[in-house]
Amino acid sequence: MSILIKNGYCLGEQEGIYDIFIEKNKIKKIDTNIKEQADDIIDAKECLVIPTFCNAHTHSAMSLFRGLADDLSLMDWLNNHIFPSEAKYVNKKMVYICSKLSMLEMIRSATGCFMDMYFFEEEVAKAALEIGMKGVIGEGIIDFKTPDCANVDEAISKTFSLKREFESDTIKVAFSPHSTYTLTEDSLKKIAEASEGFIVHTHVNETKSEVELCMEKHKKRPMEVLRDAGLLERDIYLAHCVASTDDDINMMKQYKTNVINVPQSNLKLASGIAPIYKIMKNGIDVFIGTDGPASNNNLDILEELRVSSLVQKAINYDETAVDAKTTFQIGTNSVFETSGKLKEGFDADIAVVKLDGFEATPIFNPYSYLAYAANSRDVSTVIINGKIILKNGEFLSIDEEKVKFDVKAMAKKLGAMF
Amino acid sequence: MSILIKNGYCLGEQEGIYDIFIEKNKIKKIDTNIKEQADDIIDAKECLVIPTFCNAHTHSAMSLFRGLADDLSLMDWLNNHIFPSEAKYVNKKMVYICSKLSMLEMIRSATGCFMDMYFFEEEVAKAALEIGMKGVIGEGIIDFKTPDCANVDEAISKTFSLKREFESDTIKVAFSPHSTYTLTEDSLKKIAEASEGFIVHTHVNETKSEVELCMEKHKKRPMEVLRDAGLLERDIYLAHCVASTDDDINMMKQYKTNVINVPQSNLKLASGIAPIYKIMKNGIDVFIGTDGPASNNNLDILEELRVSSLVQKAINYDETAVDAKTTFQIGTNSVFETSGKLKEGFDADIAVVKLDGFEATPIFNPYSYLAYAANSRDVSTVIINGKIILKNGEFLSIDEEKVKFDVKAMAKKLGAMF
Repeated sequence: MSILIKNGYCLGEQEGIYDIFIEKNKIKKIDTNIKEQADDIIDAKECLVIPTFCNAHTHSAMSLFRGLADDLSLMDWLNNHIFPSEAKYVNKKMVYICSKLSMLEMIRSATGCFMDMYFFEEEVAKAALEIGMKGVIGEGIIDFKTPDCANVDEAISKTFSLKREFESDTIKVAFSPHSTYTLTEDSLKKIAEASEGFIVHTHVNETKSEVELCMEKHKKRPMEVLRDAGLLERDIYLAHCVASTDDDINMMKQYKTNVINVPQSNLKLASGIAPIYKIMKNGIDVFIGTDGPASNNNLDILEELRVSSLVQKAINYDETAVDAKTTFQIGTNSVFETSGKLKEGFDADIAVVKLDGFEATPIFNPYSYLAYAANSRDVSTVIINGKIILKNGEFLSIDEEKVKFDVKAMAKKLGAMF
Repeated sequence: MSILIKNGYCLGEQEGIYDIFIEKNKIKKIDTNIKEQADDIIDAKECLVIPTFCNAHTHSAMSLFRGLADDLSLMDWLNNHIFPSEAKYVNKKMVYICSKLSMLEMIRSATGCFMDMYFFEEEVAKAALEIGMKGVIGEGIIDFKTPDCANVDEAISKTFSLKREFESDTIKVAFSPHSTYTLTEDSLKKIAEASEGFIVHTHVNETKSEVELCMEKHKKRPMEVLRDAGLLERDIYLAHCVASTDDDINMMKQYKTNVINVPQSNLKLASGIAPIYKIMKNGIDVFIGTDGPASNNNLDILEELRVSSLVQKAINYDETAVDAKTTFQIGTNSVFETSGKLKEGFDADIAVVKLDGFEATPIFNPYSYLAYAANSRDVSTVIINGKIILKNGEFLSIDEEKVKFDVKAMAKKLGAMF
């Protein structure tokens, strides 16, 4: 299987008008006027060609609860709406169908890879394999019974078996301890020991009150709890980081942790704005995440990237903060090492963005266009791991109407209007 | 000319599934199962039917400069990029073509009306009449020579002649003194005297430094300058209001001024976030504005409304602040008195939003969907003043490709890439 993308304006490593030749799942060649024969030819004239984005923090099955209860205080939302609904409606079938919907929504805005934390993650893996999307799946670990694990030990052993069953070119398995407020220090230590060689994905410093609660309970900050458990020594991804102090940021730097910026969810749940500009100035790798569709309420990565840049300018009173090219780099930073760049030898995770929208008229700088003007409607074609998933805005081998129908039918039972 | 919109889920005044019967430019009847014969029938089953939004602050012709120079400090942007480009490229033809592009972009996201401030506003009026969009046009008045007026007196008399020529059902003419930092107190007084019976549209408290400069120059704050000139006694719309103190807000309340929230531009230019939640709690009418496409960089009102709600929650640490229904009310607040509501006797300014997108799956609350999830791709049909302008995502009687082509050709001379 080979694909030739002709005459697109490429962004990133090698900027300019090039052809890209894809063989199997890899970018084989980037050059002008490539003559190789290909099974598929994509005319990308007057289009941008970009690496797909990586949505590094979501709970994709929660699309069932999208907009179920908005404009409520976090605790009211969780205790009176989300937790009771999860107890009643989260099961294998729900996770399979609802995460599938989210994957389609993500691909629609040029997202080729996502990092997920929820329950029944084997269903997320199955859906991702079926659709052809790259996923980092992690069974959410908490100190209570979850819909599919009785306790922490069971969730740990489930993570190992997920790895045995699914780890591949397109699926990675992460350890996903939920947070320092839903796990004891003993449990966190257990997870730290078990997670050698794994990616670790967790929530930290999401709100001021989380930090205050932690100080009360442990006499230390969440980052110190993670450090003392041994988790900062892992390849760890820290989602949110809103209430991070300079000490926290120093610790992120010292341990070379990864930070996932989740701006819209943090705004919507009134948590605040993470000090991302400061974190980046400390040389810490920053990724973008949408959070789950219950707290966003969409998975449009272009929207997320836009807001992530705009709010940093405002809170730093600096128009130059997190500029358009930096925003692009944050969006294409990938949890998969060989993804996120248009580079020979890298995975063929590529999106074509057509430039015929009003918002694309005119374009002086393609990074500015993507960061500040583009709409996911402009995403035309998405290739993941060498396979064309979306072509001219249509999914090639997925019945998207059926997926929507199934989710809507399920949501009607929870009282959805549409 | 009559239109019947069948079986849509109506939002606002009368919520639920209704038919809407439109005769000439008015909503004649809202009821279940309307039997009237109509020239056009729109099937709105499984769609939302909403009043069109009003973009109350823009400089629509500036689409030519969209993304011309981003991520720069405000003064660098203005002095080294925008002002020199304006001096060279702003003329009648440019304003006509580039404002037309902006109108199409606005209609695409269900905007039926806009309030504009720029130069050669007669061209904006002509374009609006041609497209069928409602516009409040205002020749920008400053103390210097502009591309079409030699001085303040000329701009004042031009405003009167615009009113004589264009004022109608769909075009209003406003007095548009630019700001307290581009006009002397004498000029502002002259404009206050001349503007009896007019809408007045101005920028105020956009940045901290504007206020500091004003304090230095006048020993009073911009709002006090406007008050002392007599402008607050007019039907005045104050754009931005970021650096507003409690005293300023009291003055807005006392004089019943209107406030236009312009959140994305304020973020992007690092001006900050207007205290909109506090302003609304004081009973002051708030409208939404995108600002011009050179400082946004798109005119998508759904994006603007989303950000306007989200940032208020975050800066107030209150998840309930500016909730979804309030956001809808801000978006539909119209400068035209008989627009912005689905109500018998009101102007037929109506949009149909289809609910078949991923982001619309599922919907528990249609206001939440619009505020937190919807994409302008979901806007299917837009009716302005009783005429169908957009139908099933297509403009009926406008050659949008030609408009884009013309703007692109013009932008190439400024160095545009696409």
